[in-house]
Amino acid sequence: MPSIDLNSDCGESFGNWTLGRDEDVIPLVTTISIACGFHAGDPVTMLRTIDVAKRSGVRIGAHPGLPDLLGFGRRTMDISPSDTYAYIAYQVGALVSLLAAQDLTLNHVKPHGALDMLRRDRALAEAAADAFFDSMDRPALYWPVAEGNLLANALGARGARIVREFYPDLEYASDGTTVLERHKRAVSADEVKTRVRRLLEDGRVKTVDGSLIEMRAESICAHGDTPDALEVIHAIHEGIERSGWTVGPVDIA
Amino acid sequence: MPSIDLNSDCGESFGNWTLGRDEDVIPLVTTISIACGFHAGDPVTMLRTIDVAKRSGVRIGAHPGLPDLLGFGRRTMDISPSDTYAYIAYQVGALVSLLAAQDLTLNHVKPHGALDMLRRDRALAEAAADAFFDSMDRPALYWPVAEGNLLANALGARGARIVREFYPDLEYASDGTTVLERHKRAVSADEVKTRVRRLLEDGRVKTVDGSLIEMRAESICAHGDTPDALEVIHAIHEGIERSGWTVGPVDIA
Amino acid sequence: MPSIDLNSDCGESFGNWTLGRDEDVIPLVTTISIACGFHAGDPVTMLRTIDVAKRSGVRIGAHPGLPDLLGFGRRTMDISPSDTYAYIAYQVGALVSLLAAQDLTLNHVKPHGALDMLRRDRALAEAAADAFFDSMDRPALYWPVAEGNLLANALGARGARIVREFYPDLEYASDGTTVLERHKRAVSADEVKTRVRRLLEDGRVKTVDGSLIEMRAESICAHGDTPDALEVIHAIHEGIERSGWTVGPVDIA
Amino acid sequence: MPSIDLNSDCGESFGNWTLGRDEDVIPLVTTISIACGFHAGDPVTMLRTIDVAKRSGVRIGAHPGLPDLLGFGRRTMDISPSDTYAYIAYQVGALVSLLAAQDLTLNHVKPHGALDMLRRDRALAEAAADAFFDSMDRPALYWPVAEGNLLANALGARGARIVREFYPDLEYASDGTTVLERHKRAVSADEVKTRVRRLLEDGRVKTVDGSLIEMRAESICAHGDTPDALEVIHAIHEGIERSGWTVGPVDIA
Repeated sequence: MPSIDLNSDCGESFGNWTLGRDEDVIPLVTTISIACGFHAGDPVTMLRTIDVAKRSGVRIGAHPGLPDLLGFGRRTMDISPSDTYAYIAYQVGALVSLLAAQDLTLNHVKPHGALDMLRRDRALAEAAADAFFDSMDRPALYWPVAEGNLLANALGARGARIVREFYPDLEYASDGTTVLERHKRAVSADEVKTRVRRLLEDGRVKTVDGSLIEMRAESICAHGDTPDALEVIHAIHEGIERSGWTVGPVDIA
Repeated sequence: MPSIDLNSDCGESFGNWTLGRDEDVIPLVTTISIACGFHAGDPVTMLRTIDVAKRSGVRIGAHPGLPDLLGFGRRTMDISPSDTYAYIAYQVGALVSLLAAQDLTLNHVKPHGALDMLRRDRALAEAAADAFFDSMDRPALYWPVAEGNLLANALGARGARIVREFYPDLEYASDGTTVLERHKRAVSADEVKTRVRRLLEDGRVKTVDGSLIEMRAESICAHGDTPDALEVIHAIHEGIERSGWTVGPVDIA
Repeated sequence: MPSIDLNSDCGESFGNWTLGRDEDVIPLVTTISIACGFHAGDPVTMLRTIDVAKRSGVRIGAHPGLPDLLGFGRRTMDISPSDTYAYIAYQVGALVSLLAAQDLTLNHVKPHGALDMLRRDRALAEAAADAFFDSMDRPALYWPVAEGNLLANALGARGARIVREFYPDLEYASDGTTVLERHKRAVSADEVKTRVRRLLEDGRVKTVDGSLIEMRAESICAHGDTPDALEVIHAIHEGIERSGWTVGPVDIA
Repeated sequence: MPSIDLNSDCGESFGNWTLGRDEDVIPLVTTISIACGFHAGDPVTMLRTIDVAKRSGVRIGAHPGLPDLLGFGRRTMDISPSDTYAYIAYQVGALVSLLAAQDLTLNHVKPHGALDMLRRDRALAEAAADAFFDSMDRPALYWPVAEGNLLANALGARGARIVREFYPDLEYASDGTTVLERHKRAVSADEVKTRVRRLLEDGRVKTVDGSLIEMRAESICAHGDTPDALEVIHAIHEGIERSGWTVGPVDIA
C-alpha cells in the first residue's frame, strides 16, 4: 500500500496568544514544521511544541518567517539577500540547537507565508539555499513546489531533497501555485476529502478557474489554525484511506 | 610571563543603529561575547560580528539578554525559570549554529545586563545552568563573579568552567559585585590603568566606599560602547604591560 | 433601583492572534478598556474595537501596559518614572486621538497587568498621575483599589475620579488586593453570581484565607478572555438582578 | 528678502541607541519631524525631542513609519489600506497628544522611508489622507513631491497644505523623485551649497543622469544622522545666504 506524509505547521502561538490546537493536531500527523520566533512562535512555545512532537514521535522541521509579528509574516517585505540568509540561518539554527538538547535532529525547512518571495527572486533564493546548507546536515525543503520555483531549483541543483506539498484547503492557480490569503477561508471537509482523493487517485488538482492540472506531492499539509482543523485532518485521513493509501513519513535521507 | 585574557561585548548594534566600534575593538582583545538579538544584536549584525572576529582570530562567546530591546536588557523583568531556560537556550543556540556554519565553536556564555538576576535567584540560576549544559559541549561562564553568585555556584557544582571577569571601568560594591547603571559613566584612562595594575599586582580592587577588597580575575572586560573605548583599551593594555603581564586567551578546555 | 457599572478589558488581540470575544462581550457591558499596543492590541485592533464599542454605545477607557508583548505585560519590569510617564502618555494619547477621529472622548484609564506596580511605588505612581492629567481633560482611574494604593492616592489627591472595581473571578488577599496570576483559572458561574450578590448585598468579599472583608466598588470587571467568558458575564448580570440592582455606567463628570 | 524653511527628521534614536545629533541640529533649523515609535523613536525619545524643540521654538511635525524597527522603516512592506490608516493615525495621534501636554500643536506630517509607497498606490494614499484629516486640524504634508505623487494629489484635492521639500544631499531621478538608498552616502558640503543655490537661484536640480530639471520647494531637508550633518547644515545656511535668501518657517495656516 503506498503511503503519503501528512504535515502541519505548529508552534504558531506567541506568548499569551494561542493559535492552533497543536496538542490535538500533532498526534494526527507524521511531520510538523515549527515557527521560530519571527512571524510567530517564541522560545517557550518552541520548547513546548518540541515536547509534544517528541512524545508523538513526529518528524520536526523549521518554519522560519519574516520578522513581522504584527503581520504574521504574511506581508511581503523588501529584504536583501544578506537579510534572507541571516534571518533563515538564525531561526533554523535556534531550532536545531533546541532540538539537539532533546537528542533530536532537524528534518526539513519550510518557509512561511510571504517568504513565498523565495520562489520568485533568484538572489533571495540563492541566499536562502546557502542558509539551508549552512544550517542542516541533509538539507530538505517542504513546500508547495510548482514550475519556476527558484528556491526549489537552487536547492535541487545542489542536491537537496525537495518534498512537494499539497494543500487540500487552499485554492490553486493554473500555474500550480497556491493563492495566499491573509485570512484563510474555510473549506468543507467533504471538499477536502475529494481533493485528497483526486490527488492520490488521479494526480490532479482543480484550479480556481475550474480546470484540472497535474499535481505531484509527497506530503499533504493540514492547517491546524482553523476552527474546523481537526475535522479537516480527519477528512484528509479518510480521503487517504479511501484512495487505498496510508499515512507515513517521507524518508529524507 | 603570566597572561590575562581581555574580552569585550560586541555585536550590540541593531539594524540601522550602531553601538560600539567593533571593527576597531575586536583586533585589540582576545575574546568577545556577541549579543544574540534579544537585548541587542540582530541576525545580520551577528554575522558581521562573527566575520570580524574570525578574521581577528578571537574566541567567541554568547551574550544573551532579556527580551527588552527598548530597555537594552538592563531592566529587571520578572521572568520564570522556564522563560529563563528558553530565552538562553534559544539565543545561545542561534549563535552556536551561526558559528558552526563558519567552522567555529562557542567558547563561553556571558549573561547580559539585568540577567544579573541569575546570581541572586536559585530557580533562575538552575534553569540557566540547564540551558548552558544543553547548548554547549564544554559549558563555560564569563562573569564578574563574587561570593554568593548562584549561577556560578550552580554551574561550578556541575563542572562548568567559570572565568572570573574584572571591569576596570565600573564601580565595585564592598561585596565584590559591580554596580549596574543604566547609562555608563566615563572613567579616566589613568584610573583604568591604575585599577588594572592593582588587580594584577595586588589582587585587589578599590570599592565605592574606598576600601580595598580581594579580587581575582582571569579576564578583563573592556567596554566598546563608550566614546573613549579605544583609549580605555589601550590603557588596559598599558596597565597589563606595566604589571609585567601579557594579554592572552583563557584556556577553557 | 441602584445601578452598578460592568466593564471589560478589550482589544487584547494582536495582529493575527485573537484574544477574547470582544464582539460578543461589548454589547453585554457598559464600559470597556482598550489595550493600546504595548502589552497587547495594535492600531488595527484598536480601531476595530472602537468601532464595535461605538455601535454598542459603551464608554471607552485606555488600558495601557508595559512594553512586553511576549509576557503580555504581566511581568514586573524595572522601569523608571520617566519611562512610566512616557509609556502611559504615549499609549493613552494614541487612543485619545483615535477616539477623537470618531467624535468620542476617553472615559478613563485602567493600568494593565504588572503596571500593578504603580500601586506600590510612589515615584512611578506620581509619574503615572502626571501622565493621566496630561492626557485627559477629566482624569479618571478604573482599578481594583485597596488601602495603600499609591496611584489612587496620587490621583485622588489631585482631584481625579477613582472608580473602584470588583473582580468576581479573581481571588482576593486579606488586604483587599487581587492575586495576579499569569494564567487565569476558571471560576464557576455560580460562584461568580454568589460573589456579586455578596458585594452588592453585604458590601463584602471572601478572601483566599476564607475571611470576609469589606469591599466597595462602583464597577464590576468581567474578563472576556476566558473560554467561559460569556457564561460568567451572564452570571454577573443575574447576580446583579437578583440583588435588586441594575447595570448602568458610572458618571465620571 | 525671500525666505525658505529648513527642516530635519529627529527623534530617530531608540532606547539605548542614539541616531543623529538632535541637540545640535534642532537649533539650526526651523522645523522638525519626529519619529513616532514604529521605524524609530520611542516614547521617552519623543518626549526628549519635543523638549529640545520647544526650547528652540521650532515647529514640530510627525514622522510616521512602517512597523519595522529592524529595517528602520526603509523596506517596502505589503500593508493594506486599513493598516495604513491605522498605523499613521496611531503614530500621529500619539505625538499630537504628547504635544498637547506641552501646549504645542502638530505642524505637519511627513511619511518616513518606505512609506514612499504612498506616492504610488492610490488606495494607500487615500487611506493615509484619511488618517491625516482625522489626526490634525489643518492637515499639512512635508514631502519631496514630484509629478504623479498620489498622496500629495489626494491631500491637495481635499484642501490640505502641501509643503514641497528639497533634499540637497540626495540624488534625484529625472522624474523629480529622490533615489532612496538603505545607507546614505556622504555628499560634500560644497556640493550641497551648490545644489541649494541652484534651487533658490535657478529653480532647478541636477539629476543622476546629469540633466537639469525644474524643482520647486518651500523647505530644505537636512539629514541629522550623517557623520558630517552639522557641516552640511552650515553649508545649507551658507548656500541660502549666498543666494540672497533667509531661513524662516513655512506659514501653514
